[in-house]
Amino acid sequence: MNVLIVYAHPEPRSLNGALRDFAVAHLEAAGHAVQVSDLYAMNWKAAFDADDVTDRASDARFDPALDSKRAFETGTQRDDIAREQAKLNWADAVILQFPLWWFSMPAIMKGWVERVYAYGFAYGVGEHSDRHWGDRYGEGSLAGKRAMVIVTTGGWESHYSARGINGPIDDVLFPIQHGILYYPGFDVLPPFVIYRAGKMNDARFDEIRAALGKRLDELWTVQPIPFRRQNAGDYEIPALTLKPDIAPGTVGFAAHLAAAR
Amino acid sequence: MNVLIVYAHPEPRSLNGALRDFAVAHLEAAGHAVQVSDLYAMNWKAAFDADDVTDRASDARFDPALDSKRAFETGTQRDDIAREQAKLNWADAVILQFPLWWFSMPAIMKGWVERVYAYGFAYGVGEHSDRHWGDRYGEGSLAGKRAMVIVTTGGWESHYSARGINGPIDDVLFPIQHGILYYPGFDVLPPFVIYRAGKMNDARFDEIRAALGKRLDELWTVQPIPFRRQNAGDYEIPALTLKPDIAPGTVGFAAHLAAAR
Repeated sequence: MNVLIVYAHPEPRSLNGALRDFAVAHLEAAGHAVQVSDLYAMNWKAAFDADDVTDRASDARFDPALDSKRAFETGTQRDDIAREQAKLNWADAVILQFPLWWFSMPAIMKGWVERVYAYGFAYGVGEHSDRHWGDRYGEGSLAGKRAMVIVTTGGWESHYSARGINGPIDDVLFPIQHGILYYPGFDVLPPFVIYRAGKMNDARFDEIRAALGKRLDELWTVQPIPFRRQNAGDYEIPALTLKPDIAPGTVGFAAHLAAAR
Repeated sequence: MNVLIVYAHPEPRSLNGALRDFAVAHLEAAGHAVQVSDLYAMNWKAAFDADDVTDRASDARFDPALDSKRAFETGTQRDDIAREQAKLNWADAVILQFPLWWFSMPAIMKGWVERVYAYGFAYGVGEHSDRHWGDRYGEGSLAGKRAMVIVTTGGWESHYSARGINGPIDDVLFPIQHGILYYPGFDVLPPFVIYRAGKMNDARFDEIRAALGKRLDELWTVQPIPFRRQNAGDYEIPALTLKPDIAPGTVGFAAHLAAAR
Protein backbone atom coordinates (compact mmCIF):
# COMPACT_ATOMS: atom_id res chain seq x y z
CA MET A 1 0.00 0.00 0.00
CA ASN A 2 1.00 3.65 -0.43
CA VAL A 3 1.50 5.85 2.62
CA LEU A 4 2.00 9.61 2.63
CA ILE A 5 3.41 11.13 5.81
CA VAL A 6 2.89 14.88 6.06
CA TYR A 7 5.37 15.95 8.68
CA ALA A 8 6.03 19.27 10.40
CA HIS A 9 8.84 19.78 12.88
CA PRO A 10 11.66 22.29 12.43
CA GLU A 11 14.39 20.04 13.90
CA PRO A 12 15.16 16.59 12.41
CA ARG A 13 17.14 15.66 15.57
CA SER A 14 13.95 15.76 17.65
CA LEU A 15 11.58 13.18 19.07
CA ASN A 16 9.30 13.87 16.13
CA GLY A 17 12.18 13.38 13.72
CA ALA A 18 13.13 10.06 15.32
CA LEU A 19 9.55 8.81 15.23
CA ARG A 20 9.16 9.89 11.62
CA ASP A 21 12.32 7.97 10.65
CA PHE A 22 11.07 4.96 12.57
CA ALA A 23 7.66 5.09 10.89
CA VAL A 24 9.16 5.28 7.40
CA ALA A 25 11.52 2.35 8.06
CA HIS A 26 8.79 0.29 9.71
CA LEU A 27 6.30 0.81 6.88
CA GLU A 28 8.90 0.13 4.19
CA ALA A 29 10.02 -3.05 5.98
CA ALA A 30 6.39 -4.19 5.82
CA GLY A 31 6.46 -3.71 2.04
CA HIS A 32 4.63 -0.41 1.76
CA ALA A 33 5.69 2.50 -0.41
CA VAL A 34 6.21 5.69 1.59
CA GLN A 35 6.45 9.33 0.62
CA VAL A 36 7.18 12.04 3.17
CA SER A 37 6.21 15.68 2.78
CA ASP A 38 8.68 17.17 5.24
CA LEU A 39 7.23 20.65 5.26
CA TYR A 40 10.08 22.47 6.99
CA ALA A 41 12.69 20.72 4.84
CA MET A 42 10.65 21.63 1.73
CA ASN A 43 10.47 25.24 2.90
CA TRP A 44 6.74 24.92 2.33
CA LYS A 45 4.97 28.24 1.62
CA ALA A 46 2.56 28.52 4.52
CA ALA A 47 0.42 31.50 3.58
CA PHE A 48 -2.38 30.92 1.09
CA ASP A 49 -2.59 34.01 -1.12
CA ALA A 50 -2.97 35.38 -4.64
CA ASP A 51 0.46 34.04 -5.65
CA ASP A 52 -1.01 30.54 -5.51
CA VAL A 53 -2.87 31.24 -8.74
CA THR A 54 -0.41 31.64 -11.58
CA ASP A 55 -2.52 33.39 -14.20
CA ARG A 56 -4.19 36.21 -12.30
CA ALA A 57 -4.13 39.81 -13.39
CA SER A 58 -2.05 41.55 -10.75
CA ASP A 59 -4.80 44.03 -9.92
CA ALA A 60 -7.64 41.49 -9.76
CA ARG A 61 -9.45 41.01 -6.48
CA PHE A 62 -8.36 37.71 -4.90
CA ASP A 63 -11.19 35.43 -3.78
CA PRO A 64 -9.69 32.52 -1.81
CA ALA A 65 -12.50 30.12 -2.72
CA LEU A 66 -13.30 31.11 -6.30
CA ASP A 67 -9.70 31.64 -7.38
CA SER A 68 -8.78 28.29 -5.88
CA LYS A 69 -11.65 26.70 -7.82
CA ARG A 70 -10.63 28.20 -11.13
CA ALA A 71 -6.95 27.43 -10.63
CA PHE A 72 -7.70 23.81 -9.75
CA GLU A 73 -10.02 23.38 -12.74
CA THR A 74 -7.75 25.03 -15.28
CA GLY A 75 -4.41 23.71 -14.04
CA THR A 76 -3.10 27.13 -13.06
CA GLN A 77 -2.33 26.25 -9.48
CA ARG A 78 1.25 26.62 -8.32
CA ASP A 79 3.24 23.43 -8.93
CA ASP A 80 3.91 22.82 -5.25
CA ILE A 81 0.15 22.57 -4.65
CA ALA A 82 -0.46 20.22 -7.57
CA ARG A 83 2.39 17.96 -6.42
CA GLU A 84 0.86 17.54 -2.97
CA GLN A 85 -2.57 16.81 -4.47
CA ALA A 86 -0.95 14.11 -6.61
CA LYS A 87 0.59 12.59 -3.48
CA LEU A 88 -2.82 12.54 -1.81
CA ASN A 89 -4.34 10.84 -4.86
CA TRP A 90 -1.49 8.29 -4.84
CA ALA A 91 -1.81 7.48 -1.13
CA ASP A 92 -3.92 4.73 0.39
CA ALA A 93 -3.24 6.16 3.82
CA VAL A 94 -2.13 9.59 5.01
CA ILE A 95 -0.44 10.32 8.32
CA LEU A 96 -0.25 13.85 9.69
CA GLN A 97 2.61 14.04 12.17
CA PHE A 98 3.26 17.16 14.23
CA PRO A 99 3.84 18.61 17.69
CA LEU A 100 0.69 20.15 19.16
CA TRP A 101 1.46 23.88 19.26
CA TRP A 102 -1.15 26.08 20.88
CA PHE A 103 -3.74 23.33 20.67
CA SER A 104 -3.50 22.79 16.93
CA MET A 105 -1.08 21.85 14.17
CA PRO A 106 1.93 24.06 13.41
CA ALA A 107 1.22 26.97 11.07
CA ILE A 108 3.28 25.43 8.28
CA MET A 109 1.02 22.36 8.26
CA LYS A 110 -2.14 24.46 8.50
CA GLY A 111 -0.87 26.25 5.41
CA TRP A 112 -0.42 22.91 3.68
CA VAL A 113 -4.10 22.20 4.30
CA GLU A 114 -5.27 25.63 3.18
CA ARG A 115 -3.28 25.55 -0.07
CA VAL A 116 -3.53 21.88 -1.07
CA TYR A 117 -7.21 21.53 -0.17
CA ALA A 118 -8.40 23.41 -3.23
CA TYR A 119 -12.03 24.14 -4.04
CA GLY A 120 -13.10 21.26 -6.28
CA PHE A 121 -10.48 18.99 -4.74
CA ALA A 122 -11.28 18.85 -1.03
CA TYR A 123 -14.39 21.02 -0.82
CA GLY A 124 -17.05 22.26 -3.16
CA VAL A 125 -17.33 18.70 -4.47
CA GLY A 126 -20.57 16.96 -5.48
CA GLU A 127 -24.24 17.82 -5.72
CA HIS A 128 -25.63 20.58 -3.51
CA SER A 129 -29.36 20.13 -3.10
CA ASP A 130 -31.90 19.77 -0.33
CA ARG A 131 -31.09 16.05 -0.11
CA HIS A 132 -27.32 16.12 -0.46
CA TRP A 133 -25.13 18.95 0.80
CA GLY A 134 -21.98 18.28 -1.21
CA ASP A 135 -19.75 15.22 -1.01
CA ARG A 136 -18.30 15.87 2.41
CA TYR A 137 -18.12 14.42 5.90
CA GLY A 138 -17.74 10.81 4.88
CA GLU A 139 -17.86 11.31 1.11
CA GLY A 140 -15.57 13.24 -1.19
CA SER A 141 -12.43 13.05 -3.31
CA LEU A 142 -10.43 11.27 -0.63
CA ALA A 143 -13.05 8.66 0.30
CA GLY A 144 -11.70 5.15 0.61
CA LYS A 145 -8.40 6.35 2.04
CA ARG A 146 -7.38 6.16 5.66
CA ALA A 147 -5.84 8.93 7.76
CA MET A 148 -4.22 9.10 11.17
CA VAL A 149 -2.72 11.80 13.32
CA ILE A 150 0.55 11.28 15.19
CA VAL A 151 0.93 14.10 17.69
CA THR A 152 3.25 15.01 20.55
CA THR A 153 2.24 17.27 23.44
CA GLY A 154 4.21 18.96 26.18
CA GLY A 155 1.27 18.58 28.57
CA TRP A 156 0.39 15.51 30.57
CA GLU A 157 -2.25 12.97 29.63
CA SER A 158 -4.41 14.10 32.56
CA HIS A 159 -4.37 17.68 31.23
CA TYR A 160 -6.09 16.33 28.11
CA SER A 161 -8.49 13.97 29.90
CA ALA A 162 -12.27 14.27 30.00
CA ARG A 163 -12.09 16.90 32.76
CA GLY A 164 -8.55 18.12 32.08
CA ILE A 165 -7.92 21.84 31.73
CA ASN A 166 -6.79 21.72 28.08
CA GLY A 167 -9.94 19.88 27.06
CA PRO A 168 -10.19 16.20 26.09
CA ILE A 169 -7.68 15.31 23.39
CA ASP A 170 -10.47 13.99 21.14
CA ASP A 171 -12.14 17.40 21.31
CA VAL A 172 -8.88 19.30 20.81
CA LEU A 173 -8.26 17.19 17.70
CA PHE A 174 -11.86 17.30 16.43
CA PRO A 175 -11.31 20.30 14.12
CA ILE A 176 -8.46 18.33 12.53
CA GLN A 177 -9.83 14.80 12.58
CA HIS A 178 -13.44 15.67 11.69
CA GLY A 179 -13.00 19.07 10.06
CA ILE A 180 -9.85 18.47 7.98
CA LEU A 181 -9.67 14.68 7.51
CA TYR A 182 -13.22 13.34 7.62
CA TYR A 183 -14.59 16.29 5.65
CA PRO A 184 -13.00 15.35 2.28
CA GLY A 185 -13.73 11.67 2.82
CA PHE A 186 -10.93 10.05 4.83
CA ASP A 187 -11.69 7.23 7.24
CA VAL A 188 -9.99 8.63 10.34
CA LEU A 189 -8.21 6.24 12.67
CA PRO A 190 -7.77 6.89 16.39
CA PRO A 191 -4.83 9.25 16.93
CA PHE A 192 -1.44 8.19 18.24
CA VAL A 193 -0.65 10.69 20.99
CA ILE A 194 2.64 11.04 22.87
CA TYR A 195 2.10 13.13 26.00
CA ARG A 196 4.79 14.92 28.00
CA ALA A 197 7.14 14.72 25.06
CA GLY A 198 9.73 16.85 26.85
CA LYS A 199 10.25 14.11 29.42
CA MET A 200 11.75 11.35 27.35
CA ASN A 201 14.28 8.66 28.16
CA ASP A 202 15.49 5.53 26.41
CA ALA A 203 13.04 3.18 28.10
CA ARG A 204 10.05 5.37 27.32
CA PHE A 205 11.22 5.93 23.78
CA ASP A 206 11.49 2.16 23.24
CA GLU A 207 7.93 1.70 24.53
CA ILE A 208 6.58 4.47 22.32
CA ARG A 209 8.37 3.09 19.28
CA ALA A 210 6.94 -0.37 19.91
CA ALA A 211 3.44 1.04 20.36
CA LEU A 212 3.73 3.09 17.20
CA GLY A 213 4.97 0.06 15.26
CA LYS A 214 1.90 -1.85 16.38
CA ARG A 215 -0.38 1.01 15.32
CA LEU A 216 1.29 1.15 11.91
CA ASP A 217 0.79 -2.61 11.52
CA GLU A 218 -2.92 -2.07 12.19
CA LEU A 219 -3.24 0.82 9.74
CA TRP A 220 -5.43 -1.21 7.38
CA THR A 221 -7.48 -3.10 9.95
CA VAL A 222 -8.24 -0.86 12.92
CA GLN A 223 -11.78 0.52 13.11
CA PRO A 224 -12.05 4.19 12.10
CA ILE A 225 -13.60 6.75 14.41
CA PRO A 226 -17.35 6.36 13.79
CA PHE A 227 -18.13 9.90 12.68
CA ARG A 228 -21.63 10.27 11.28
CA ARG A 229 -21.99 10.62 7.51
CA GLN A 230 -23.55 13.90 6.53
CA ASN A 231 -25.81 12.65 3.75
CA ALA A 232 -26.84 9.28 5.20
CA GLY A 233 -29.91 10.37 7.12
CA ASP A 234 -28.72 11.59 10.52
CA TYR A 235 -28.78 15.28 9.62
CA GLU A 236 -31.43 17.71 8.49
CA ILE A 237 -30.46 19.26 5.14
CA PRO A 238 -29.64 22.12 4.64
CA ALA A 239 -29.61 23.05 8.35
CA LEU A 240 -27.07 20.25 8.92
CA THR A 241 -28.23 19.76 12.49
CA LEU A 242 -28.76 16.29 13.90
CA LYS A 243 -32.33 15.10 13.58
CA PRO A 244 -34.23 15.16 16.88
CA ASP A 245 -34.27 11.35 17.22
CA ILE A 246 -30.49 11.06 16.72
CA ALA A 247 -28.60 11.13 20.04
CA PRO A 248 -31.41 13.18 21.57
CA GLY A 249 -30.25 15.74 24.09
CA THR A 250 -26.58 15.37 23.17
CA VAL A 251 -24.72 18.48 22.03
CA GLY A 252 -21.17 19.29 21.02
CA PHE A 253 -18.50 17.38 19.16
CA ALA A 254 -19.32 14.01 20.71
CA ALA A 255 -22.81 14.05 19.18
CA HIS A 256 -21.22 13.45 15.79
CA LEU A 257 -20.01 9.99 16.73
CA ALA A 258 -22.38 7.19 15.80
CA ALA A 259 -21.88 5.73 19.25
CA ALA A 260 -23.07 8.94 20.94
CA ARG A 261 -25.74 8.33 23.53
CA MET B 1 -7.48 53.00 25.42
CA ASN B 2 -5.08 51.17 23.11
CA VAL B 3 -6.40 48.54 20.73
CA LEU B 4 -4.33 46.12 18.67
CA ILE B 5 -6.08 44.41 15.77
CA VAL B 6 -4.27 41.36 14.47
CA TYR B 7 -5.76 40.80 11.07
CA ALA B 8 -5.33 38.05 8.49
CA HIS B 9 -6.99 38.15 5.10
CA PRO B 10 -5.12 38.09 1.79
CA GLU B 11 -7.45 40.55 0.01
CA PRO B 12 -8.08 44.06 1.37
CA ARG B 13 -11.12 44.42 -0.94
CA SER B 14 -12.96 41.71 1.00
CA LEU B 15 -15.67 41.62 3.64
CA ASN B 16 -12.94 41.17 6.22
CA GLY B 17 -11.07 44.14 4.83
CA ALA B 18 -14.18 46.31 4.95
CA LEU B 19 -14.95 45.30 8.52
CA ARG B 20 -11.37 45.91 9.56
CA ASP B 21 -11.46 49.42 8.10
CA PHE B 22 -14.78 50.04 9.82
CA ALA B 23 -13.45 48.82 13.17
CA VAL B 24 -10.37 51.04 12.98
CA ALA B 25 -12.42 54.11 12.09
CA HIS B 26 -15.05 53.37 14.73
CA LEU B 27 -12.50 52.88 17.52
CA GLU B 28 -10.53 55.97 16.53
CA ALA B 29 -13.70 58.04 16.39
CA ALA B 30 -14.35 56.97 19.98
CA GLY B 31 -10.93 58.31 20.97
CA HIS B 32 -8.96 55.08 21.14
CA ALA B 33 -5.50 54.53 19.70
CA VAL B 34 -5.43 51.67 17.21
CA GLN B 35 -2.59 49.65 15.73
CA VAL B 36 -3.22 47.00 13.09
CA SER B 37 -0.94 44.06 12.44
CA ASP B 38 -2.06 43.26 8.91
CA LEU B 39 -0.23 39.96 8.60
CA TYR B 40 -0.56 39.47 4.84
CA ALA B 41 0.40 43.09 4.14
CA MET B 42 3.41 42.70 6.48
CA ASN B 43 4.40 39.51 4.65
CA TRP B 44 4.53 37.95 8.10
CA LYS B 45 6.85 34.92 8.36
CA ALA B 46 4.47 32.13 9.29
CA ALA B 47 6.80 29.25 10.09
CA PHE B 48 8.46 29.21 13.51
CA ASP B 49 11.97 27.87 13.07
CA ALA B 50 15.64 28.23 13.95
CA ASP B 51 15.91 31.49 12.01
CA ASP B 52 13.81 33.12 14.73
CA VAL B 53 16.81 33.03 17.05
CA THR B 54 19.50 35.33 15.76
CA ASP B 55 22.58 34.07 17.62
CA ARG B 56 22.45 30.31 17.15
CA ALA B 57 25.34 28.23 15.90
CA SER B 58 24.17 26.98 12.52
CA ASP B 59 24.72 23.34 13.46
CA ALA B 60 23.06 23.54 16.89
CA ARG B 61 19.97 21.45 17.52
CA PHE B 62 16.89 23.71 17.53
CA ASP B 63 14.59 23.30 20.51
CA PRO B 64 11.42 25.33 19.88
CA ALA B 65 10.72 25.92 23.59
CA LEU B 66 14.23 26.33 25.00
CA ASP B 67 15.58 28.39 22.12
CA SER B 68 12.52 30.62 22.33
CA LYS B 69 13.16 31.06 26.06
CA ARG B 70 16.79 31.99 25.64
CA ALA B 71 16.11 34.33 22.73
CA PHE B 72 13.35 36.12 24.65
CA GLU B 73 15.53 36.46 27.77
CA THR B 74 18.64 37.64 26.00
CA GLY B 75 17.04 39.87 23.39
CA THR B 76 18.17 37.72 20.47
CA GLN B 77 14.71 37.20 19.01
CA ARG B 78 14.10 38.40 15.49
CA ASP B 79 12.96 42.02 15.42
CA ASP B 80 9.58 41.21 13.90
CA ILE B 81 8.76 39.07 16.96
CA ALA B 82 9.90 41.70 19.45
CA ARG B 83 7.82 44.36 17.69
CA GLU B 84 4.64 42.30 18.01
CA GLN B 85 5.35 41.60 21.69
CA ALA B 86 5.72 45.35 22.22
CA LYS B 87 2.34 45.90 20.56
CA LEU B 88 0.77 43.34 22.88
CA ASN B 89 2.32 45.07 25.90
CA TRP B 90 1.02 48.41 24.64
CA ALA B 91 -2.52 47.21 24.02
CA ASP B 92 -5.39 47.34 26.48
CA ALA B 93 -7.44 45.18 24.15
CA VAL B 94 -6.51 42.82 21.33
CA ILE B 95 -8.79 41.79 18.50
CA LEU B 96 -7.99 38.78 16.34
CA GLN B 97 -9.84 39.12 13.05
CA PHE B 98 -9.82 36.36 10.46
CA PRO B 99 -11.89 34.13 8.19
CA LEU B 100 -12.42 30.65 9.65
CA TRP B 101 -10.43 28.38 7.33
CA TRP B 102 -10.70 24.66 8.01
CA PHE B 103 -12.13 25.30 11.45
CA SER B 104 -9.30 27.45 12.74
CA MET B 105 -7.39 30.67 12.05
CA PRO B 106 -5.40 31.07 8.82
CA ALA B 107 -1.89 29.63 8.93
CA ILE B 108 -0.32 33.08 8.79
CA MET B 109 -2.07 34.03 12.04
CA LYS B 110 -1.26 30.70 13.68
CA GLY B 111 2.35 31.47 12.87
CA TRP B 112 1.98 34.87 14.52
CA VAL B 113 0.90 33.09 17.71
CA GLU B 114 3.67 30.50 17.55
CA ARG B 115 6.42 33.06 17.00
CA VAL B 116 5.22 35.98 19.15
CA TYR B 117 4.12 33.81 22.08
CA ALA B 118 7.69 33.17 23.27
CA TYR B 119 8.58 31.01 26.25
CA GLY B 120 8.82 33.46 29.13
CA PHE B 121 6.40 35.85 27.43
CA ALA B 122 3.20 33.87 26.93
CA TYR B 123 4.06 30.53 28.52
CA GLY B 124 6.60 29.20 30.97
CA VAL B 125 5.72 32.16 33.20
CA GLY B 126 5.49 32.09 37.01
CA GLU B 127 5.96 29.54 39.76
CA HIS B 128 5.58 25.84 38.97
CA SER B 129 4.82 23.95 42.17
CA ASP B 130 2.18 21.60 43.53
CA ARG B 131 0.00 24.62 44.39
CA HIS B 132 0.51 26.78 41.33
CA TRP B 133 1.10 25.42 37.85
CA GLY B 134 2.55 28.48 36.18
CA ASP B 135 0.82 31.80 35.59
CA ARG B 136 -1.62 30.65 32.95
CA TYR B 137 -5.32 30.24 32.28
CA GLY B 138 -6.44 33.47 33.90
CA GLU B 139 -3.01 34.70 35.01
CA GLY B 140 0.08 35.59 33.00
CA SER B 141 1.88 38.37 31.18
CA LEU B 142 -1.25 39.56 29.39
CA ALA B 143 -3.57 39.58 32.41
CA GLY B 144 -5.69 42.69 32.74
CA LYS B 145 -6.07 43.02 28.98
CA ARG B 146 -9.15 42.12 27.00
CA ALA B 147 -9.33 40.08 23.81
CA MET B 148 -12.01 39.34 21.26
CA VAL B 149 -12.26 37.29 18.11
CA ILE B 150 -13.97 38.63 14.97
CA VAL B 151 -14.49 35.75 12.59
CA THR B 152 -16.27 35.11 9.31
CA THR B 153 -17.49 31.68 8.20
CA GLY B 154 -18.78 30.34 4.91
CA GLY B 155 -21.09 27.96 6.76
CA TRP B 156 -24.49 28.79 8.15
CA GLU B 157 -25.24 29.57 11.79
CA SER B 158 -27.15 26.28 12.12
CA HIS B 159 -24.08 24.34 10.96
CA TYR B 160 -22.29 25.74 14.02
CA SER B 161 -25.18 25.33 16.46
CA ALA B 162 -25.26 22.99 19.46
CA ARG B 163 -26.12 20.02 17.24
CA GLY B 164 -24.74 21.37 13.97
CA ILE B 165 -22.38 19.22 11.94
CA ASN B 166 -19.34 21.52 12.26
CA GLY B 167 -19.63 21.57 16.03
CA PRO B 168 -20.84 24.47 18.18
CA ILE B 169 -18.98 27.67 17.36
CA ASP B 170 -17.94 28.06 21.02
CA ASP B 171 -16.29 24.64 20.87
CA VAL B 172 -14.68 25.29 17.48
CA LEU B 173 -13.22 28.50 18.91
CA PHE B 174 -12.26 27.00 22.30
CA PRO B 175 -8.67 26.18 21.29
CA ILE B 176 -8.28 29.84 20.29
CA GLN B 177 -10.32 31.58 22.97
CA HIS B 178 -9.27 29.38 25.90
CA GLY B 179 -6.01 27.92 24.59
CA ILE B 180 -4.46 30.97 22.91
CA LEU B 181 -6.15 33.97 24.57
CA TYR B 182 -7.14 32.95 28.10
CA TYR B 183 -3.93 30.95 28.60
CA PRO B 184 -1.56 33.96 28.79
CA GLY B 185 -4.06 35.96 30.83
CA PHE B 186 -6.49 37.77 28.54
CA ASP B 187 -10.09 38.29 29.60
CA VAL B 188 -11.84 36.87 26.55
CA LEU B 189 -15.00 38.53 25.34
CA PRO B 190 -17.74 36.69 23.45
CA PRO B 191 -16.77 36.38 19.78
CA PHE B 192 -18.29 38.41 16.97
CA VAL B 193 -19.19 35.86 14.31
CA ILE B 194 -20.42 36.58 10.79
CA TYR B 195 -21.92 33.43 9.29
CA ARG B 196 -22.47 32.75 5.60
CA ALA B 197 -20.03 35.46 4.69
CA GLY B 198 -20.23 34.56 1.00
CA LYS B 199 -23.87 35.68 0.91
CA MET B 200 -23.57 39.37 1.54
CA ASN B 201 -25.61 42.31 0.36
CA ASP B 202 -25.81 45.97 1.29
CA ALA B 203 -28.62 45.55 3.80
CA ARG B 204 -26.90 42.69 5.60
CA PHE B 205 -23.59 44.51 5.55
CA ASP B 206 -25.20 47.57 7.15
CA GLU B 207 -26.68 45.39 9.90
CA ILE B 208 -23.37 43.66 10.56
CA ARG B 209 -21.50 46.94 10.68
CA ALA B 210 -24.00 48.35 13.16
CA ALA B 211 -23.77 45.24 15.35
CA LEU B 212 -19.97 45.33 15.23
CA GLY B 213 -19.96 49.00 16.17
CA LYS B 214 -22.08 48.20 19.20
CA ARG B 215 -19.74 45.38 20.21
CA LEU B 216 -16.75 47.69 19.89
CA ASP B 217 -18.50 50.26 22.08
CA GLU B 218 -18.91 47.55 24.72
CA LEU B 219 -15.30 46.39 24.53
CA TRP B 220 -14.54 47.68 28.04
CA THR B 221 -17.81 46.78 29.72
CA VAL B 222 -19.11 43.46 28.39
CA GLN B 223 -18.66 40.45 30.69
CA PRO B 224 -15.83 38.14 29.64
CA ILE B 225 -16.43 34.44 29.03
CA PRO B 226 -16.29 32.95 32.56
CA PHE B 227 -13.46 30.48 32.01
CA ARG B 228 -12.23 28.92 35.25
CA ARG B 229 -8.92 30.14 36.65
CA GLN B 230 -6.37 27.36 36.83
CA ASN B 231 -4.83 28.23 40.20
CA ALA B 232 -7.93 29.44 42.04
CA GLY B 233 -9.08 26.14 43.50
CA ASP B 234 -11.22 24.44 40.84
CA TYR B 235 -8.42 22.15 39.56
CA GLU B 236 -6.25 19.46 41.11
CA ILE B 237 -2.59 20.36 40.72
CA PRO B 238 -0.55 18.99 38.95
CA ALA B 239 -3.15 16.72 37.29
CA LEU B 240 -5.05 19.85 36.20
CA THR B 241 -8.35 18.01 36.21
CA LEU B 242 -11.46 19.58 37.69
CA LYS B 243 -11.99 18.60 41.31
CA PRO B 244 -14.81 16.09 41.78
CA ASP B 245 -17.16 18.62 43.36
CA ILE B 246 -16.74 21.12 40.51
CA ALA B 247 -19.38 20.65 37.80
CA PRO B 248 -19.67 16.97 38.75
CA GLY B 249 -20.32 14.69 35.80
CA THR B 250 -19.60 17.36 33.22
CA VAL B 251 -16.87 16.67 30.67
CA GLY B 252 -15.42 18.48 27.68
CA PHE B 253 -14.79 22.13 26.91
CA ALA B 254 -17.98 23.39 28.57
CA ALA B 255 -16.83 22.11 31.96
CA HIS B 256 -14.24 24.91 32.01
CA LEU B 257 -16.89 27.62 32.19
CA ALA B 258 -17.72 28.73 35.72
CA ALA B 259 -21.40 28.52 34.81
CA ALA B 260 -21.12 24.84 33.84
CA ARG B 261 -23.71 22.68 35.50
